[in-house]
Amino acid sequence: MGSLKSNLDLVNECDNFPYFDIPSAKGLPSERYFKFKLEGRDEALGYVLPDIARKFPESKVFNRDDGSMELIFKPGDVPTDPKQAAVCRTKVLAAYLQDVRENNIFQVLTGWRNELYPVYGLNRELLFSMERSASALFGIVTYGVHMTAYTQNSDSIKIWTPRRSPTKQTYPGMMDNTVAGGLSTGERPFGCLIRESMEEASLPEAVVRSAKACGTMTYFHVRDERAGGEVGLCQPECQYVYDLVLPEDVVPKPGDNEAVDFQLLSISEAQEAMAAGRFKPNCALLLLEFFVRHGIVTPENEPDYLELVSRLHRRLEFPMGQS
Amino acid sequence: MGSLKSNLDLVNECDNFPYFDIPSAKGLPSERYFKFKLEGRDEALGYVLPDIARKFPESKVFNRDDGSMELIFKPGDVPTDPKQAAVCRTKVLAAYLQDVRENNIFQVLTGWRNELYPVYGLNRELLFSMERSASALFGIVTYGVHMTAYTQNSDSIKIWTPRRSPTKQTYPGMMDNTVAGGLSTGERPFGCLIRESMEEASLPEAVVRSAKACGTMTYFHVRDERAGGEVGLCQPECQYVYDLVLPEDVVPKPGDNEAVDFQLLSISEAQEAMAAGRFKPNCALLLLEFFVRHGIVTPENEPDYLELVSRLHRRLEFPMGQS
Repeated sequence: MGSLKSNLDLVNECDNFPYFDIPSAKGLPSERYFKFKLEGRDEALGYVLPDIARKFPESKVFNRDDGSMELIFKPGDVPTDPKQAAVCRTKVLAAYLQDVRENNIFQVLTGWRNELYPVYGLNRELLFSMERSASALFGIVTYGVHMTAYTQNSDSIKIWTPRRSPTKQTYPGMMDNTVAGGLSTGERPFGCLIRESMEEASLPEAVVRSAKACGTMTYFHVRDERAGGEVGLCQPECQYVYDLVLPEDVVPKPGDNEAVDFQLLSISEAQEAMAAGRFKPNCALLLLEFFVRHGIVTPENEPDYLELVSRLHRRLEFPMGQS
Repeated sequence: MGSLKSNLDLVNECDNFPYFDIPSAKGLPSERYFKFKLEGRDEALGYVLPDIARKFPESKVFNRDDGSMELIFKPGDVPTDPKQAAVCRTKVLAAYLQDVRENNIFQVLTGWRNELYPVYGLNRELLFSMERSASALFGIVTYGVHMTAYTQNSDSIKIWTPRRSPTKQTYPGMMDNTVAGGLSTGERPFGCLIRESMEEASLPEAVVRSAKACGTMTYFHVRDERAGGEVGLCQPECQYVYDLVLPEDVVPKPGDNEAVDFQLLSISEAQEAMAAGRFKPNCALLLLEFFVRHGIVTPENEPDYLELVSRLHRRLEFPMGQS
């Protein structure tokens, strides 16, 4: 076991894409990454590592411009209706990515999910959807829900914490948030939360209906080997945050093969596990955000408070969806 | 009365310094503003409008470099002990600013407060302090506390809301947060909160002790005429956020000449006043942040949710203090 991590260490580990205005940034991101764009539109939809950009096979629908450092998706003529246009682009992209997958070019595509993630434009309109496992190749923003379910007696809060299965593809055996899941195209945050709560924690809708929306957590992650697949991929993420107070007789149970069990941790037990690096990185951040909102991590006990709170709500530099 | 403001309008009005990565930014801030620096150190401590930078009288302790666009404070030799060095720099700056004030160069200095605000370096060390009314000339980060005191019955929250005195220098007659005040050098956030709660709202320490720290709100404001003084000054701010549940028989009362009275507003009354532009801009934001944390503004009822939450926690590009 390594040395204990501070809360700022935990943030630095997850929100680890450089900020443009600090010395280590070495110039603007747009000078170091290819910008993923949709033909005819100016906004960058994500950042692509140069090595990755060069591995994408060029085709009628995919173009790389080394001069402007752009990787351009060219679906060709699409219907004028925005929704139909999105459907059309999604099909073209799916066919292309299926081809890329079959040529075994990228490791991350071996984790193919058959699940579509949304990609939005500057006006928050859905431009198209993309196979989930490909999202990090393009560095697009992905969306999810994270919920902390906890018990509360007078001054004591305890948090329901699952352990991830030791056979999971990503972050095996690490501790997780009570409920967490990705938002597919067309899915609403609260609907996703209700579905995931049943699937992952066997919490019925009637219980989860009282969950409270508490904001979002956003960070810009650069993937390392623990995520599996290529290292250095960009993964800007936006998590819708929910709190749920549970009566003591409601006990979450694994509902699928995601978690091994659920433990009810005291605040100090959770903080020790965070400091020991036992939480999946973004789940440690979600707990930290919970501790800030609940007056557990305070200006009085956390020297890095000012930096932490901003870093947990990073403004991402790509267009995002309407919530 | 103008048209109603959306929550995003309210954010845009307060967090109105451009982001570097959007089209309207017109280049990096460092190309449009003078950087305020301490001699011998690299970090920019604030941004200064070129017109303002050119009005500062050059002196032995103050130097303007038009080429590198830097306004450099040169206190000369200071003690090696960091605390003594800060005291020494503070004295030199105070003497210089007193001179500037007496020469009637800047309107904002007519609001001289005799109150010192801290300026921190990259390692969060106090570099020196500066007269409060001068802070916007240099564009340094200022710190404050804001507290929302509210009553809570089953599902209904009501918020104690003061109206600012019609004779106040800044934002006269507008609605405010229950308690709000600036953090002077050496003052701790919770200590400041307790002092201001008594001064502004006649809330005794025994009551305020149960206030809960809930994070920070940060934004980068560019001042307009409502703030008084020069227009266009940079005002990056960091507010420590507190919640206080009050029993119904505890009623805040004006304790000084800041507020005329306190009203207990329902959520919808507060939201109507926000939309009508009746709140001081940063106080509207503080309420918005409260509504997000309390599940009142949600992904389901606020199309701009994702943008709002990040914007309320802007990462400021200047060094900040240890909390």
